[in-house]
Amino acid sequence: MCSKIAFLGGGSFGTALAIMLAKKGIEVKVWDRKQQVVDDINIKRENIKYLHGAVVPAGITASTDIEQVVKDSEYIVLAVPSHVIRRISSDIKKFTSSNQIIVSIAKGIEQESGKRLSEVIKEELADNPVVILSGPSHAEEVAQDIPTTVVVASENLEAAEKVQDLFMTNKFRVYTNEDLVGVEIGGAVKNIIALAAGISDGIGYGDNTKAALMTRGISEIVRIGIKLGGKIETFAGLTGIGDLIVTCTSMHSRNRRAGILIGKGATAEEATKEIGMVVEGIKACKAFYGLKERLGISMPITDVLYKVLFEDKDPKYGVYELMTRDKKDEAY
Amino acid sequence: MCSKIAFLGGGSFGTALAIMLAKKGIEVKVWDRKQQVVDDINIKRENIKYLHGAVVPAGITASTDIEQVVKDSEYIVLAVPSHVIRRISSDIKKFTSSNQIIVSIAKGIEQESGKRLSEVIKEELADNPVVILSGPSHAEEVAQDIPTTVVVASENLEAAEKVQDLFMTNKFRVYTNEDLVGVEIGGAVKNIIALAAGISDGIGYGDNTKAALMTRGISEIVRIGIKLGGKIETFAGLTGIGDLIVTCTSMHSRNRRAGILIGKGATAEEATKEIGMVVEGIKACKAFYGLKERLGISMPITDVLYKVLFEDKDPKYGVYELMTRDKKDEAY
Repeated sequence: MCSKIAFLGGGSFGTALAIMLAKKGIEVKVWDRKQQVVDDINIKRENIKYLHGAVVPAGITASTDIEQVVKDSEYIVLAVPSHVIRRISSDIKKFTSSNQIIVSIAKGIEQESGKRLSEVIKEELADNPVVILSGPSHAEEVAQDIPTTVVVASENLEAAEKVQDLFMTNKFRVYTNEDLVGVEIGGAVKNIIALAAGISDGIGYGDNTKAALMTRGISEIVRIGIKLGGKIETFAGLTGIGDLIVTCTSMHSRNRRAGILIGKGATAEEATKEIGMVVEGIKACKAFYGLKERLGISMPITDVLYKVLFEDKDPKYGVYELMTRDKKDEAY
Repeated sequence: MCSKIAFLGGGSFGTALAIMLAKKGIEVKVWDRKQQVVDDINIKRENIKYLHGAVVPAGITASTDIEQVVKDSEYIVLAVPSHVIRRISSDIKKFTSSNQIIVSIAKGIEQESGKRLSEVIKEELADNPVVILSGPSHAEEVAQDIPTTVVVASENLEAAEKVQDLFMTNKFRVYTNEDLVGVEIGGAVKNIIALAAGISDGIGYGDNTKAALMTRGISEIVRIGIKLGGKIETFAGLTGIGDLIVTCTSMHSRNRRAGILIGKGATAEEATKEIGMVVEGIKACKAFYGLKERLGISMPITDVLYKVLFEDKDPKYGVYELMTRDKKDEAY
């Protein structure tokens, strides 16, 4: 294989995928705006800040020159936080041609508009095929070749299948799913539930409590997801329940770790600062709070989390309230 | 409240519930066949073997005389492993009257017949209302008053509502669910998936791997559960996904712990001996393997686990096989 891949953003998941592809013999270029990250990749052969401990193979080069990284690449992977997706898509417009496939690995929706990220990318790069890659896949484990399964979704099935072939290894299984909406919404909302699950852990509540919260969280994902056009099977799959489980239970999850800090008394800003990377669940909570209000969907976990994050509600009281809502029959 | 409750079996979950009820001022009697357990409860005020560290309140008395425990009780809680349910139901038949409500907290199906436990109980105690209590509820956390939610299900809604009122506290929320089949099947099959998840952990695979296994496990629960007459909403609820999550991720889970030992090289017997209590997933695997063969249902995790437990298949190869089945589209 000699496909050229551009990764825009040297974060943890992007770096893990770049390493995986380089091991397959694929030529990979990484763009990052931070000179330190670029130097660490090129010289120290390790992305010290974002993926400590993983060796960067020789097939990867990094640069702060986005044009040089993007041009001549067959695939452009957008590996930036959700709120940067529009800006970066707009920035690269002048260097891209329509045969380059755009792959987004971000999870979230645009805060102001409530648009899915594939919609945002399409608005900026209308002529390019856009593929979303999502699923239960912590970067730290991908970098260690731990068996992982993900899903690719696109309006363009041919492009999705190309991306499937590109990323597939015997330890990294890639499935296609035609339900683009469901894949994107599941990946975004699960971060809200993971924050809430982390808060429950931070307060000192147990596995029983968290399992109940996660179960209700799935209902919440399904309600908003179906309203937005997703399919129930998708929410029961890898990018729905699967990703929710891994995000709510693994210490690799930034969202869960931020929740734990908030459950112990930190503010949202303090938690984000301590984590040192973008906490997508905080952004997703704000975005989906607005969206669900406009659409009239019941999302009690999102409601409570919004109050905890942005209105100084005591997290302990919030979780307690969620657990004791007056519902006597399970079918709610 | 002055209801009298008989707990048959001084295991961990039964003891945790007995303590919880006694704290509500309810008179509780516990029967166990082991004199040591009875003495520990009566004299040391602690069930040292099965629920170490939890204080047994004054309202609980224990006895090895089952007749004395059963008679005059309004509720009889069957707190024994699944394979003992028929024998104990048969044993108490001569002391019971039809107004006593039977509550089962066991999770499994009868190995030989493939019958659900409520069916087994009904065959022995035809005149008594039978209520199943299930959900994500590790005993160790219930004993510590950690917020927990469970479900009660019965063909007799009035009896289910009585049991709901009996057990409800502000930390232990009880919902009713009319789908008795779904509640029982979810509770039984999740132990199979938890064993498999534990094996994945024991081998050293990661959170990504386990989340994928659990996601496929849910499909497996849904397929067999719907075939047997359960409802999809139940499998998406507390006794389905909720209980699956807690059993696959908590160190309190005996099934998961047994799986970890097997993943590290122990046989099923060695793992059971090390755990020191019944590992329901091993029994459930055998029972559901027979049932799915008769019904022609695809249950790949159950298949692989059966081969690992009973046909000496290498667990590492088994999990690998599960992860790399040739499926290119997620909707399988």
